[in-house]
This record gives sequence, C-alpha cells and structure tokens, in this order.
Amino acid sequence: MRVTALSGGVGGARFLRGLLAHLDRTPALADSTVTIIGNTGDDITLFGLRVCPDLDTVLYTLGRGVHEGQGWGRADEGYAVHAELSALGVPPDWFSLGDKDFGTHIARSLWLGQGHSLSEVTARLARRWGLPDRGVTLLPMTDVPVETHVVVDEGGGPQAVHFQEWWVRMRAAVPAQRFVVAGMDRATAAPGVLDAIRTADVVLLPPSNPVVSIGIILGVPGVRDALRGTRAPVVGVSPLVSGRPVRGHADACLAAIGVSATSSAVAALYADFLGGWLVDDADADAAMPSGVTSRARPLLMTDISAAADIAGAALDLGVELARS
Amino acid sequence: MRVTALSGGVGGARFLRGLLAHLDRTPALADSTVTIIGNTGDDITLFGLRVCPDLDTVLYTLGRGVHEGQGWGRADEGYAVHAELSALGVPPDWFSLGDKDFGTHIARSLWLGQGHSLSEVTARLARRWGLPDRGVTLLPMTDVPVETHVVVDEGGGPQAVHFQEWWVRMRAAVPAQRFVVAGMDRATAAPGVLDAIRTADVVLLPPSNPVVSIGIILGVPGVRDALRGTRAPVVGVSPLVSGRPVRGHADACLAAIGVSATSSAVAALYADFLGGWLVDDADADAAMPSGVTSRARPLLMTDISAAADIAGAALDLGVELARS
Repeated sequence: MRVTALSGGVGGARFLRGLLAHLDRTPALADSTVTIIGNTGDDITLFGLRVCPDLDTVLYTLGRGVHEGQGWGRADEGYAVHAELSALGVPPDWFSLGDKDFGTHIARSLWLGQGHSLSEVTARLARRWGLPDRGVTLLPMTDVPVETHVVVDEGGGPQAVHFQEWWVRMRAAVPAQRFVVAGMDRATAAPGVLDAIRTADVVLLPPSNPVVSIGIILGVPGVRDALRGTRAPVVGVSPLVSGRPVRGHADACLAAIGVSATSSAVAALYADFLGGWLVDDADADAAMPSGVTSRARPLLMTDISAAADIAGAALDLGVELARS
Repeated sequence: MRVTALSGGVGGARFLRGLLAHLDRTPALADSTVTIIGNTGDDITLFGLRVCPDLDTVLYTLGRGVHEGQGWGRADEGYAVHAELSALGVPPDWFSLGDKDFGTHIARSLWLGQGHSLSEVTARLARRWGLPDRGVTLLPMTDVPVETHVVVDEGGGPQAVHFQEWWVRMRAAVPAQRFVVAGMDRATAAPGVLDAIRTADVVLLPPSNPVVSIGIILGVPGVRDALRGTRAPVVGVSPLVSGRPVRGHADACLAAIGVSATSSAVAALYADFLGGWLVDDADADAAMPSGVTSRARPLLMTDISAAADIAGAALDLGVELARS
C-alpha cells in the first residue's frame, strides 16, 4: 500500500511512528511505502543556521533518536554549544538547541549553502536515520524558504513575530490575530509532493495542528487541488479531544482563524477533500460535514502501540472508503 | 608601556600569557597595554563555519580556557557535534572541533554574516575572554579573508592544499614546495594594526613560526614598512633551539623557503627591522645579522613562570635598545 501523510511536528511524528509499527506488525502491509509531506512553516534561521523543527522531529522520532519526554530534540543531549553562545550573548533566552541537534543544523546549513535543495538535504538526513530502508520518504512541503509569522499585540499595537517566538516564548498565550506565511507567494510544492498525493492508495492527516501544521501545507500551491483530485481516500485523525488539543495549542490557533475548537469544526476545514475522520470516543456524537465518514475510538497516543492502533484504524477506514 | 606583538598560535599564545604574567608581577609595568596582531592565514571555513585557529588559540590561552595539554582548543571539551556530523558523513577525518569551540565558530560566522568585520568579531570574542580588562587588544592582521595554501606533491604532480590540511592531515611530513597566501593581493592591514606598530614602545616577535605565522603577517601590505619605520625597538624570540623547533614544524616550513633551520637564519629573515633577538643558551654562539643585538637564555616555555621570564628578558632587551 502506498500511504501518503501530511505532518507537523510532535503529534504527527508520533502518529507516523505508530503507522510504521502497524505496518511492521501487519504481514499484508509489509511491502507498504510511506511518503511524508512535512510542514516547513516552522523553519527558522537561528544563530545563522537553518533549523527545520517539524522535519527534524519526524526524523528523530522515526529514527529512534528523539527525546521521548520532550517529543522533540535528541535523547541524551548536551548543551555545551548553547552555553558558549550564551557566554557570547548570542541566543535569545527563549530558545535553546542541544549539541547533537546543532550537528544536524550545521550539516543542513552547509549543504544548503552548497546549493542543495531542502529536498536533497532532507533526503540525506533521512538516510542517516534509516528511513529509506523502512520504505519511508520524507519530503519538505516546499523547497522555497517559508516562515509562518503570527500577528500579535503585546501592547503597543500589532506586530508580526516568528511562529517559534509565539509558540515557544509566548507559549501561544498572547492571542494570535492572524497568521502570515512569509514566502508562500513564491512557493511551489517540492518535487514529488503533488505526485505522492495523486498516486497514493490512501492519504492520512495525522492529529497535527490544523492551522499552523496541516493548514500551512494546504496553503502550498497545488496541494489542496491534489487532495481534492486524488482517487485515494483521505482519512484524518482529530487533533482535539472534547474540544481540547491533545498536545500543543491548536485551540489558540483555531481561535485566531475564527474556528471553534471541536472535532467537527476541524473536519469542516478539510471538508472539500476529506473522506474519513477519526474522533475520540468522547466526541462520538460530533456532527460531520457532508460526505465525511467518522469513526470514534480512543485517540490518546499513550505509547507506540496505542499510536499503531490509531494508525491502523485510519488505514482500515481508508480501505473501507476505497471499497465503497 | 605600550607593547605590540605579532603572534601565531600555540607558541605565540604561550609567550603572550607569559608576557601578561610578567606585567602583572612587575609594579612598574602595571599600566602597560598590549596589542596583539594575530595571524589569520590559518583561517579556514569548515562545515560552513569560519574558523580562526590562531586568534582562537590566543583568546583561549589568555582567557584561561585553553586545553593545556594540546595548547589549542578548549579545556574539558566534548565532541557531540562532531560525532553527529560524522554520522552525516560531513567532516574530513583529519580535523575535528569540540562543542565549546563550535560555539565560537557559530557566533563568529553569524556575526560575519551580519556584516561585521573580523576585527569587530574578534573584539566581541575578546570581551568574552576578559582581554580588555587586562589592557589587551587582539587585532586580526587583516579583515580580508586570506588563506595560506601549501604546494605539495603527494605523487601525481604539484597541488595546493590548505595550510591546515598540510599541517594537520599530513603533519607537515610531505615537503612543502612553496606557500601561497590566497587573498593577500586584496588584503589591507586591519584597523589599528599599522598604528599599533608605529606608536608602540616596544614590538615583540614571540617564538611563532617564522614562515607560516610571523611571515604571513609580514606579508600584509604596510606591516613590514611599519616595522622598518617604527621608533620602537623590535625584539624577537627565536623559535628554534639547536636547530629544532620547540614546537610545530618550523624546520619544514623554513626548508620550503630555502632557509636553514637556525636561530641565525631566522634572525636574518627579520634583519631589516630587528633590533634584539633572544636565543637559547644552546645557540649562544649564533652569528647575528648586522645591527641585531642577541642575548642567550633558556627559551623553553615549560610553564607560565618560564614564559614570563622569557617575555621579561625580551622587554628588558627592548628597554636597553631604546636607551642606546
């Protein structure tokens, strides 16, 4: 089975890890391939180095190198580089990177500086983490640098800050007035992205943030049209349980675009291409947009096995939709 | 007393540390200032980051952060960044950098990328290491990127390799045919360099490599003329004892330019501006060029106190020459 998935950071990565575990434990799916289209709107240049938080979280999580407690960054990290940069007065106090993580960003920046595309760089990083051997391809949504900015008012009038500053420094507690994706007007889908949607047997939307992860990917020219046009069923997993995000600040993001924080409202954001929607048992009664088939089940990804069960349920729903 | 010194890496830095110790222990010299003109010919771009080995060795040594055994790099270093870069296939196997050291190079590269000159960047780094508080100014010889390349023949005909590759990978064991300083044709002395020579009370040449450290600085337009023209006595310390370098590969470098590895021959390289020359007791009979006053004493910098004694002897010789 050819599976294509859109993904943000932690939530998406954990879902995808579950998906791989499900494929591994299901003999009939052993030859499956998974193509992941990763959000790059969170990307940021820090200390002169290009950092791609969502792509790295997917790489580290699928490559068994992630800091399990945080959900992002590397396990067993040190902070010697950051300490030296602090002694030099370089870093903002709201963002730090570990030493191993710096290795990734130094290599990425080096390769980008040599003229390689982000797709090529990401493929190199994916090899280091063993993804090709597992049938997994990770594609950035676009090779064009884009950055999600958030318009906020901390007092003194509206100003745009980088998404990471809003997410990390402000902890998304300052209301977002709107999101602006700098560079998206020049962006085109990275090589393979639109084909991966068009030729998939099933397209999955992990429980990633519908506004600043999935929503950003949907804004890449051609992606939404490809989702509308693909013959593959598109099955999503609600990122909300009883109106609250399982992780992160999806509710704050939804508020900024005037959408209520419910599984129904998120499904409605995808109504033009969504076929199936998994909701938590707590939301079993959620109304669905026309043409969307929902299934209720536990959605908490408490461990890899639970995530595998959710991914399996999403695939099953996709197969069911394809047959109907 | 206004002291100006030219310096390469380890040998120069250890001499300068001794100089500061001597100034500290000598009440009459308590208000002295020291301006160091550092060699930048060893500079290299590694992993996309700008590395200035000689400047950093001076900073770390004077700032009490150096790895004492190596003579360069940081004490108590880790290598997590390098290990990650190795996992990604990035580094050549003959050069590694520690994590703290990476912090320096990331900051330097960031600031250079923001448009700051190497002089400005070096001043920032010097503040982190407390140099201004001790009356010390560290100047790069030039703000223009220059790189010493070495023409060698490993079999297959002459080829130019970066100085660091010859020095570190080949351990200077492959004969150098000549040295070429890429970029020197566009170089000008960094702000303050020529004035520091012209207005000094004494100019010191530490026992740095006469070819690839001092020799490179002397090649910066205006530096040699300033040394010839300054009223300050110029006093040097021989980098050779009984024809052998105390450290490093000065003999191999001298061979490449057809100069014999003796204290006399090195003094002759500086004859057009040199006033005083310290040689080791073993070389007490060394012939001096016309106009050069030599003194023999132990020149092994076995510890800071020994280095302070050598620096004190150099200053004393300078004072003696100024009075004569």
